[in-house]
Amino acid sequence: MEMLKSISENLRTVKEKSPLVHHLTNYVTVNDCANMVLAVGGSPVMADDIGEVAEMASLASALVINMGTLNKRTIASMILAGQTAREHGIPVIFDPVGIGATTLRTDTAVKIIRETQPAVIRGNMSEIKCLSGLNVQIKGVDSTADEAGGERIAQNLAQKQGCVIAITGATDIISDGSRTCLITNGDKMLSRVTGTGCMTTSLIGTYCGATKDLFLGAASGIMTMGLAGEIACHSLKEAEGIGTFRVRLFDAVFNLSPESLLRGGKISLA
Amino acid sequence: MEMLKSISENLRTVKEKSPLVHHLTNYVTVNDCANMVLAVGGSPVMADDIGEVAEMASLASALVINMGTLNKRTIASMILAGQTAREHGIPVIFDPVGIGATTLRTDTAVKIIRETQPAVIRGNMSEIKCLSGLNVQIKGVDSTADEAGGERIAQNLAQKQGCVIAITGATDIISDGSRTCLITNGDKMLSRVTGTGCMTTSLIGTYCGATKDLFLGAASGIMTMGLAGEIACHSLKEAEGIGTFRVRLFDAVFNLSPESLLRGGKISLA
Amino acid sequence: MEMLKSISENLRTVKEKSPLVHHLTNYVTVNDCANMVLAVGGSPVMADDIGEVAEMASLASALVINMGTLNKRTIASMILAGQTAREHGIPVIFDPVGIGATTLRTDTAVKIIRETQPAVIRGNMSEIKCLSGLNVQIKGVDSTADEAGGERIAQNLAQKQGCVIAITGATDIISDGSRTCLITNGDKMLSRVTGTGCMTTSLIGTYCGATKDLFLGAASGIMTMGLAGEIACHSLKEAEGIGTFRVRLFDAVFNLSPESLLRGGKISLA
Repeated sequence: MEMLKSISENLRTVKEKSPLVHHLTNYVTVNDCANMVLAVGGSPVMADDIGEVAEMASLASALVINMGTLNKRTIASMILAGQTAREHGIPVIFDPVGIGATTLRTDTAVKIIRETQPAVIRGNMSEIKCLSGLNVQIKGVDSTADEAGGERIAQNLAQKQGCVIAITGATDIISDGSRTCLITNGDKMLSRVTGTGCMTTSLIGTYCGATKDLFLGAASGIMTMGLAGEIACHSLKEAEGIGTFRVRLFDAVFNLSPESLLRGGKISLA
Repeated sequence: MEMLKSISENLRTVKEKSPLVHHLTNYVTVNDCANMVLAVGGSPVMADDIGEVAEMASLASALVINMGTLNKRTIASMILAGQTAREHGIPVIFDPVGIGATTLRTDTAVKIIRETQPAVIRGNMSEIKCLSGLNVQIKGVDSTADEAGGERIAQNLAQKQGCVIAITGATDIISDGSRTCLITNGDKMLSRVTGTGCMTTSLIGTYCGATKDLFLGAASGIMTMGLAGEIACHSLKEAEGIGTFRVRLFDAVFNLSPESLLRGGKISLA
Repeated sequence: MEMLKSISENLRTVKEKSPLVHHLTNYVTVNDCANMVLAVGGSPVMADDIGEVAEMASLASALVINMGTLNKRTIASMILAGQTAREHGIPVIFDPVGIGATTLRTDTAVKIIRETQPAVIRGNMSEIKCLSGLNVQIKGVDSTADEAGGERIAQNLAQKQGCVIAITGATDIISDGSRTCLITNGDKMLSRVTGTGCMTTSLIGTYCGATKDLFLGAASGIMTMGLAGEIACHSLKEAEGIGTFRVRLFDAVFNLSPESLLRGGKISLA
């Protein structure tokens, strides 16, 4: 209940501060990420040339690094931006999209974590298991991994990396190594639309750019997406599907209030 | 009727198998392509760095190469991905967007076809005429070519290239050199929205990743888009236009059933 | 009233001519820009490889250069495309997104203007002030500048650069150095969605590709977006937000008629 109250307060803070969230992200879901940051009350900026990322990152309140469509040029920019953010005390939120699917992705994720020391890492169960060095089959960028044991995996990795680990799935798991919580908001429709993981990472970035406690910042972003997914799904009528669902998802985040988080949020300590 | 039954069965198969469809595509319509693959029941993955495309393609059920916003870096990746797919017996679906509009596009399309031997090539009448070596005026990426003689053009090119040729337009024409069919589903609103051609290619990729007969796979993807276009257009009310139409297009593909294909599909042998 | 009548006529002309509008633009809002050009009646094409931009630009009716996610590769392409357009008498519409936010952006904007001599430059107040050499604080890509004195700023810069300057904001200001007008259409919801600035630039490009008077072309694009924003916002019901607003924005531009511009347009000479 304490946590839920803080999350509700966090939404108010985001809307007051409108944090600038610098993204180095993929070209598949970048528009959705920008609109999601705007919907919750933040200000997105996307810039990835190595000649400007340090300058841009140093002005931001948070930096989101998403490796969805990484390439050699942007990997170098991600690392420079991340290092700059770290030096300025700006939280780096990292989304290791598709880690384990290819050697390039795995190597890049390891390098980004080592060089930029993210404050929060968000992934699905397959991605976080892969990052933990566990044996896991990966096909593409969607999770197929068993969710059992997730709390311990999140806690261990959080302790090892000294950061917040957020695993999103049917039940979301967030840990900073000492505190671990579970969020059960959400709807399976969220997995039928591309980019809901990326958008969740961008929401986490927006909250972490406006508030101090990054564990609760991560939980706030995840609950925002989960609750919005429920609202969007609940509104669907016959003959409506993922097209309308996506539209309503933005509507729901845009209209989400601190009160609706208090009423609808489902969070518990693990 | 035989063909329509097979197309209807193909949709069931796509939803059962959820094929992984690797895309090297343009940054204009990539989000729509990903969501279209999800809507019909597949699993999209986008990756274009030369350091990972071979690994990613070898895991996929189909590879879509779309040259909408080609550049030197991605052309090299397209060819490597395509060659890898071919070696693994994975069907390559090629969309020669804007071939004929510039020398780079024409040369690249020829090179991609030579090096990767696509299983299916989909384009509008201007693009396929250009690929056939016919004289055609091209302005931008939209078709302005006369549709007369399309059946013979598709059949001849299919025989020459040893692949399926799909020409989309008011009447869609699909040929594998021996069989040629015509599909008359669709609505002219589909040409008022960007990316419906690209999305059709991605739907073809999804079907071809789940079924054996690529001629019918191509027909399945085209009919899916055409019928969804009809349903989306039919649902429009006063003051609604391409914004709402796009949303409903995703809804319609998402809700399309094998039964609705059987009821609404309009296909005949040429 | 004279201006409003011309703007209304311009919409008719766009729909008759369907100008090809070549874009070198960012990957955040590119899909929206393409659909906006289609919605108003134009034909968009996006191409940015240096091996094809000159050929593509020379075929177009207008060229839009938007530096939202610039990088070294695309900057070179922007300059070559712009120079080619200029040599062919094709109007270049330039959107200096985020100028002032980083040195790279400021330097690139200056270089693009020097090398390509745009016919129209559109930006928010922060961007145009920065371009005018005025002291202004920039954070990210959204405007935070005071709007006072905008008319003089627009007029002076238009005279200095020999082009049309368009400043969009609560009141839009357009000047070609001798004529200056104000447009008060629009809604603050337009600033809550990513890309409405970019889309306005693309609309300006579409009008300028179809009509001769680029001052009125710029005003036409801006009024189209402003009026569509009003219509879209007016249509919103409870629980709807930026998701639905965006959809309706495309619907409103698609359905906009010369008559509705005449009825709803709010323009005056400064």
